[in-house]
Amino acid sequence: MASKNETKITAEPGKQELFIEREFEASRELVFRAFSEPEFLMQWMGPSDMDMKIDKLDNRSGGSYRFVHTLRNGAGEFGFNGAIHEVAAPERVIRTFEFEGLPERGHVSLEFLTLTELPGDRTRLSIQSIFKSVDDRDGLVQSGMEVGLNEGFKKLDDLLIKQF
Amino acid sequence: MASKNETKITAEPGKQELFIEREFEASRELVFRAFSEPEFLMQWMGPSDMDMKIDKLDNRSGGSYRFVHTLRNGAGEFGFNGAIHEVAAPERVIRTFEFEGLPERGHVSLEFLTLTELPGDRTRLSIQSIFKSVDDRDGLVQSGMEVGLNEGFKKLDDLLIKQF
Repeated sequence: MASKNETKITAEPGKQELFIEREFEASRELVFRAFSEPEFLMQWMGPSDMDMKIDKLDNRSGGSYRFVHTLRNGAGEFGFNGAIHEVAAPERVIRTFEFEGLPERGHVSLEFLTLTELPGDRTRLSIQSIFKSVDDRDGLVQSGMEVGLNEGFKKLDDLLIKQF
Repeated sequence: MASKNETKITAEPGKQELFIEREFEASRELVFRAFSEPEFLMQWMGPSDMDMKIDKLDNRSGGSYRFVHTLRNGAGEFGFNGAIHEVAAPERVIRTFEFEGLPERGHVSLEFLTLTELPGDRTRLSIQSIFKSVDDRDGLVQSGMEVGLNEGFKKLDDLLIKQF
Protein backbone atom coordinates (compact mmCIF):
# COMPACT_ATOMS: atom_id res chain seq x y z
CA MET A 1 0.00 0.00 0.00
CA ALA A 2 1.31 3.43 -0.91
CA SER A 3 1.32 5.56 2.21
CA LYS A 4 -0.44 8.89 2.39
CA ASN A 5 1.49 9.57 5.56
CA GLU A 6 4.65 11.50 4.78
CA THR A 7 7.63 12.03 7.05
CA LYS A 8 8.22 15.69 7.77
CA ILE A 9 11.73 16.65 8.90
CA THR A 10 12.38 20.20 10.14
CA ALA A 11 15.94 21.37 10.72
CA GLU A 12 16.09 25.14 10.95
CA PRO A 13 19.50 26.49 9.83
CA GLY A 14 21.93 27.20 12.65
CA LYS A 15 19.95 25.41 15.37
CA GLN A 16 21.11 22.37 17.31
CA GLU A 17 17.80 20.54 17.10
CA LEU A 18 15.58 18.82 14.58
CA PHE A 19 11.96 17.70 14.47
CA ILE A 20 10.49 14.63 12.80
CA GLU A 21 6.74 14.12 12.33
CA ARG A 22 4.90 11.12 10.89
CA GLU A 23 1.36 9.79 11.17
CA PHE A 24 0.29 6.15 11.31
CA GLU A 25 -2.96 4.29 10.65
CA ALA A 26 -3.07 2.61 14.04
CA SER A 27 -3.92 3.30 17.67
CA ARG A 28 -1.43 4.97 19.98
CA GLU A 29 -1.17 1.82 22.10
CA LEU A 30 -0.18 -0.22 19.07
CA VAL A 31 2.36 2.30 17.74
CA PHE A 32 3.85 2.54 21.22
CA ARG A 33 4.28 -1.24 21.31
CA ALA A 34 5.95 -1.12 17.88
CA PHE A 35 8.59 1.21 19.39
CA SER A 36 8.95 -0.71 22.66
CA GLU A 37 8.77 -4.45 22.08
CA PRO A 38 11.90 -6.10 20.68
CA GLU A 39 10.02 -8.62 18.50
CA PHE A 40 8.07 -5.71 16.90
CA LEU A 41 10.97 -3.29 16.62
CA MET A 42 13.32 -5.67 14.86
CA GLN A 43 10.77 -6.15 12.07
CA TRP A 44 10.68 -2.55 10.93
CA MET A 45 13.38 -0.24 12.28
CA GLY A 46 16.10 0.81 9.84
CA PRO A 47 16.76 0.91 6.10
CA SER A 48 15.46 -1.89 3.84
CA ASP A 49 18.93 -3.26 3.02
CA MET A 50 19.75 -3.88 6.69
CA ASP A 51 18.77 -6.36 9.37
CA MET A 52 18.05 -4.99 12.80
CA LYS A 53 19.34 -6.78 15.89
CA ILE A 54 18.32 -5.83 19.43
CA ASP A 55 21.52 -6.26 21.43
CA LYS A 56 19.83 -4.83 24.54
CA LEU A 57 16.53 -3.12 25.38
CA ASP A 58 15.83 -2.42 29.03
CA ASN A 59 12.80 -0.30 28.22
CA ARG A 60 12.10 1.65 31.42
CA SER A 61 12.99 4.99 33.00
CA GLY A 62 16.65 4.57 33.97
CA GLY A 63 17.18 1.73 31.49
CA SER A 64 19.29 1.56 28.33
CA TYR A 65 19.41 0.05 24.84
CA ARG A 66 21.74 -0.98 22.07
CA PHE A 67 20.64 -1.81 18.52
CA VAL A 68 22.74 -3.06 15.61
CA HIS A 69 21.93 -2.66 11.91
CA THR A 70 23.68 -5.21 9.70
CA LEU A 71 23.96 -4.74 5.95
CA ARG A 72 22.29 -7.73 4.35
CA ASN A 73 25.17 -8.09 1.84
CA GLY A 74 27.59 -8.64 4.75
CA ALA A 75 29.47 -5.38 4.08
CA GLY A 76 29.29 -4.07 7.63
CA GLU A 77 27.28 -3.24 10.68
CA PHE A 78 26.28 -0.07 12.51
CA GLY A 79 25.60 0.01 16.22
CA PHE A 80 23.88 2.72 18.21
CA ASN A 81 23.04 2.94 21.86
CA GLY A 82 21.64 5.14 24.56
CA ALA A 83 20.37 5.61 28.09
CA ILE A 84 16.62 5.87 28.67
CA HIS A 85 15.59 8.84 30.81
CA GLU A 86 11.84 8.23 30.82
CA VAL A 87 9.31 5.76 29.47
CA ALA A 88 5.75 7.08 29.99
CA ALA A 89 3.59 4.55 28.11
CA PRO A 90 1.83 5.02 25.74
CA GLU A 91 2.75 8.66 25.33
CA ARG A 92 6.41 9.49 25.62
CA VAL A 93 9.98 8.23 25.63
CA ILE A 94 13.03 10.40 26.38
CA ARG A 95 16.39 8.81 25.63
CA THR A 96 19.94 9.55 24.52
CA PHE A 97 21.30 8.41 21.15
CA GLU A 98 24.86 7.77 19.99
CA PHE A 99 25.89 6.35 16.62
CA GLU A 100 28.90 4.12 17.20
CA GLY A 101 30.30 4.55 13.68
CA LEU A 102 31.62 8.09 14.23
CA PRO A 103 35.38 8.73 14.38
CA GLU A 104 35.18 9.85 18.03
CA ARG A 105 32.94 9.05 20.98
CA GLY A 106 30.82 11.60 22.81
CA HIS A 107 28.65 13.00 20.01
CA VAL A 108 25.46 12.18 21.85
CA SER A 109 21.99 13.59 21.21
CA LEU A 110 18.81 13.56 23.31
CA GLU A 111 15.52 12.38 21.75
CA PHE A 112 12.00 13.23 22.88
CA LEU A 113 9.50 10.84 21.24
CA THR A 114 5.82 11.75 21.70
CA LEU A 115 2.75 9.87 20.45
CA THR A 116 -0.50 11.81 20.08
CA GLU A 117 -3.91 10.22 19.54
CA LEU A 118 -5.71 11.42 16.39
CA PRO A 119 -9.36 10.94 15.39
CA GLY A 120 -10.11 7.70 13.50
CA ASP A 121 -7.77 5.52 15.52
CA ARG A 122 -4.74 7.22 14.01
CA THR A 123 -1.53 8.35 15.74
CA ARG A 124 1.01 11.13 15.25
CA LEU A 125 4.65 10.46 16.13
CA SER A 126 6.68 13.59 16.94
CA ILE A 127 10.40 13.37 17.63
CA GLN A 128 12.52 16.28 18.80
CA SER A 129 16.27 15.61 18.84
CA ILE A 130 18.71 18.03 20.44
CA PHE A 131 22.41 17.89 19.57
CA LYS A 132 25.79 18.82 21.07
CA SER A 133 26.33 21.13 18.09
CA VAL A 134 24.80 22.33 14.84
CA ASP A 135 27.50 20.31 13.04
CA ASP A 136 26.44 17.11 14.79
CA ARG A 137 22.87 17.70 13.66
CA ASP A 138 23.81 18.58 10.09
CA GLY A 139 26.08 15.53 9.91
CA LEU A 140 23.18 13.26 10.83
CA VAL A 141 20.81 14.91 8.35
CA GLN A 142 23.40 14.57 5.56
CA SER A 143 24.11 10.92 6.44
CA GLY A 144 20.99 9.75 4.65
CA MET A 145 18.86 9.67 7.78
CA GLU A 146 15.74 10.59 5.84
CA VAL A 147 15.96 7.60 3.46
CA GLY A 148 16.51 5.19 6.34
CA LEU A 149 13.64 6.69 8.33
CA ASN A 150 11.23 6.49 5.40
CA GLU A 151 12.14 2.91 4.58
CA GLY A 152 11.67 1.94 8.23
CA PHE A 153 8.36 3.77 8.62
CA LYS A 154 7.07 2.13 5.42
CA LYS A 155 7.86 -1.30 6.90
CA LEU A 156 6.06 -0.20 10.05
CA ASP A 157 2.97 0.87 8.04
CA ASP A 158 2.80 -2.62 6.52
CA LEU A 159 3.37 -4.31 9.86
CA LEU A 160 0.65 -2.29 11.59
CA ILE A 161 -1.85 -3.34 8.90
CA LYS A 162 -0.77 -6.97 8.84
CA GLN A 163 -0.89 -7.48 12.55
CA PHE A 164 -4.29 -6.00 13.30
CA MET B 1 40.49 29.77 51.96
CA ALA B 2 39.25 32.30 49.44
CA SER B 3 39.26 30.67 46.06
CA LYS B 4 41.07 32.13 43.10
CA ASN B 5 39.11 29.76 40.91
CA GLU B 6 35.99 31.41 39.57
CA THR B 7 33.01 29.75 37.97
CA LYS B 8 32.46 30.93 34.40
CA ILE B 9 28.96 30.47 32.98
CA THR B 10 28.36 31.16 29.28
CA ALA B 11 24.81 31.31 27.94
CA GLU B 12 24.72 32.97 24.53
CA PRO B 13 21.34 34.67 23.89
CA GLY B 14 18.89 32.60 21.86
CA LYS B 15 20.82 29.32 22.08
CA GLN B 16 19.58 26.16 23.77
CA GLU B 17 22.88 25.37 25.49
CA LEU B 18 25.10 26.69 28.25
CA PHE B 19 28.70 26.17 29.30
CA ILE B 20 30.14 26.08 32.83
CA GLU B 21 33.87 26.18 33.54
CA ARG B 22 35.67 25.93 36.88
CA GLU B 23 39.22 24.97 37.93
CA PHE B 24 40.22 23.04 41.05
CA GLU B 25 43.45 22.64 43.03
CA ALA B 26 43.51 18.86 42.81
CA SER B 27 44.33 16.04 40.42
CA ARG B 28 41.84 14.90 37.81
CA GLU B 29 41.53 11.50 39.49
CA LEU B 30 40.51 13.13 42.76
CA VAL B 31 38.04 15.57 41.20
CA PHE B 32 36.52 12.69 39.25
CA ARG B 33 36.04 10.76 42.50
CA ALA B 34 34.39 13.81 44.06
CA PHE B 35 31.79 13.70 41.27
CA SER B 36 31.37 9.92 41.32
CA GLU B 37 31.48 8.56 44.86
CA PRO B 38 28.33 9.02 46.96
CA GLU B 39 30.20 9.65 50.24
CA PHE B 40 32.20 12.43 48.52
CA LEU B 41 29.35 13.92 46.53
CA MET B 42 26.97 14.30 49.45
CA GLN B 43 29.54 16.45 51.28
CA TRP B 44 29.70 19.22 48.71
CA MET B 45 27.01 19.24 46.01
CA GLY B 46 24.34 21.93 46.26
CA PRO B 47 23.69 25.23 48.02
CA SER B 48 24.96 25.80 51.60
CA ASP B 49 21.49 25.87 53.16
CA MET B 50 20.65 22.39 51.87
CA ASP B 51 21.56 18.83 52.69
CA MET B 52 22.28 16.50 49.83
CA LYS B 53 20.92 12.96 49.83
CA ILE B 54 21.92 10.34 47.27
CA ASP B 55 18.71 8.44 46.63
CA LYS B 56 20.40 6.41 43.85
CA LEU B 57 23.71 6.48 41.98
CA ASP B 58 24.39 3.63 39.58
CA ASN B 59 27.46 5.35 38.16
CA ARG B 60 28.16 3.52 34.89
CA SER B 61 27.32 3.80 31.19
CA GLY B 62 23.64 2.81 31.04
CA GLY B 63 23.11 3.56 34.74
CA SER B 64 21.01 6.25 36.41
CA TYR B 65 20.89 8.55 39.44
CA ARG B 66 18.55 10.49 41.71
CA PHE B 67 19.68 13.14 44.20
CA VAL B 68 17.58 15.09 46.71
CA HIS B 69 18.43 18.49 48.18
CA THR B 70 16.67 19.17 51.49
CA LEU B 71 16.40 22.67 52.94
CA ARG B 72 18.04 22.54 56.35
CA ASN B 73 15.18 24.58 57.87
CA GLY B 74 12.74 21.83 56.88
CA ALA B 75 10.93 24.04 54.38
CA GLY B 76 11.09 21.61 51.48
CA GLU B 77 13.08 19.34 49.24
CA PHE B 78 14.13 19.31 45.59
CA GLY B 79 14.77 16.11 43.71
CA PHE B 80 16.52 15.70 40.40
CA ASN B 81 17.33 12.62 38.39
CA GLY B 82 18.75 11.34 35.16
CA ALA B 83 20.00 8.49 33.03
CA ILE B 84 23.74 8.04 32.53
CA HIS B 85 24.78 7.64 28.91
CA GLU B 86 28.54 7.27 29.46
CA VAL B 87 31.04 7.19 32.31
CA ALA B 88 34.61 7.33 30.95
CA ALA B 89 36.75 7.67 34.11
CA PRO B 90 38.51 9.97 34.89
CA GLU B 91 37.67 12.13 31.89
CA ARG B 92 34.03 12.32 30.99
CA VAL B 93 30.44 11.75 32.05
CA ILE B 94 27.42 12.22 29.77
CA ARG B 95 24.03 12.14 31.49
CA THR B 96 20.52 13.53 31.37
CA PHE B 97 19.17 15.92 34.01
CA GLU B 98 15.60 16.64 35.11
CA PHE B 99 14.57 18.89 37.99
CA GLU B 100 11.51 17.33 39.63
CA GLY B 101 10.15 20.63 40.97
CA LEU B 102 8.90 21.93 37.61
CA PRO B 103 5.13 22.15 36.95
CA GLU B 104 5.34 19.54 34.17
CA ARG B 105 7.53 16.54 33.42
CA GLY B 106 9.68 16.19 30.34
CA HIS B 107 11.90 19.30 30.52
CA VAL B 108 15.07 17.24 30.34
CA SER B 109 18.56 18.44 29.48
CA LEU B 110 21.70 16.55 28.49
CA GLU B 111 24.99 17.26 30.32
CA PHE B 112 28.52 16.64 29.04
CA LEU B 113 31.01 16.85 31.96
CA THR B 114 34.68 16.85 30.98
CA LEU B 115 37.72 16.96 33.27
CA THR B 116 41.01 18.20 31.79
CA GLU B 117 44.41 17.83 33.48
CA LEU B 118 46.25 21.13 34.00
CA PRO B 119 49.91 21.71 34.95
CA GLY B 120 50.64 21.74 38.71
CA ASP B 121 48.21 18.93 39.59
CA ARG B 122 45.23 21.13 38.83
CA THR B 123 42.03 20.25 36.96
CA ARG B 124 39.54 22.07 34.76
CA LEU B 125 35.88 21.04 34.88
CA SER B 126 33.88 21.90 31.73
CA ILE B 127 30.17 21.25 31.54
CA GLN B 128 28.08 21.69 28.41
CA SER B 129 24.32 21.40 28.93
CA ILE B 130 21.90 21.24 26.01
CA PHE B 131 18.21 21.98 26.53
CA LYS B 132 14.84 21.19 24.95
CA SER B 133 14.35 24.94 24.42
CA VAL B 134 15.93 28.34 24.99
CA ASP B 135 13.21 28.95 27.61
CA ASP B 136 14.20 25.82 29.53
CA ARG B 137 17.80 27.04 29.61
CA ASP B 138 16.90 30.60 30.61
CA GLY B 139 14.59 29.28 33.33
CA LEU B 140 17.44 27.32 34.88
CA VAL B 141 19.86 30.25 34.68
CA GLN B 142 17.28 32.54 36.33
CA SER B 143 16.50 30.00 39.07
CA GLY B 144 19.62 30.92 41.01
CA MET B 145 21.73 28.13 39.54
CA GLU B 146 24.89 30.24 39.75
CA VAL B 147 24.64 30.82 43.51
CA GLY B 148 24.03 27.13 44.19
CA LEU B 149 26.90 26.10 41.92
CA ASN B 150 29.33 28.51 43.56
CA GLU B 151 28.39 27.47 47.07
CA GLY B 152 28.79 23.82 46.13
CA PHE B 153 32.14 24.34 44.38
CA LYS B 154 33.43 26.29 47.40
CA LYS B 155 32.56 23.32 49.64
CA LEU B 156 34.35 21.09 47.14
CA ASP B 157 37.49 23.32 47.24
CA ASP B 158 37.62 22.91 51.02
CA LEU B 159 36.98 19.19 50.84
CA LEU B 160 39.73 18.62 48.25
CA ILE B 161 42.24 20.39 50.52
CA LYS B 162 41.09 18.67 53.71
CA GLN B 163 41.13 15.17 52.35
CA PHE B 164 44.54 15.15 50.71
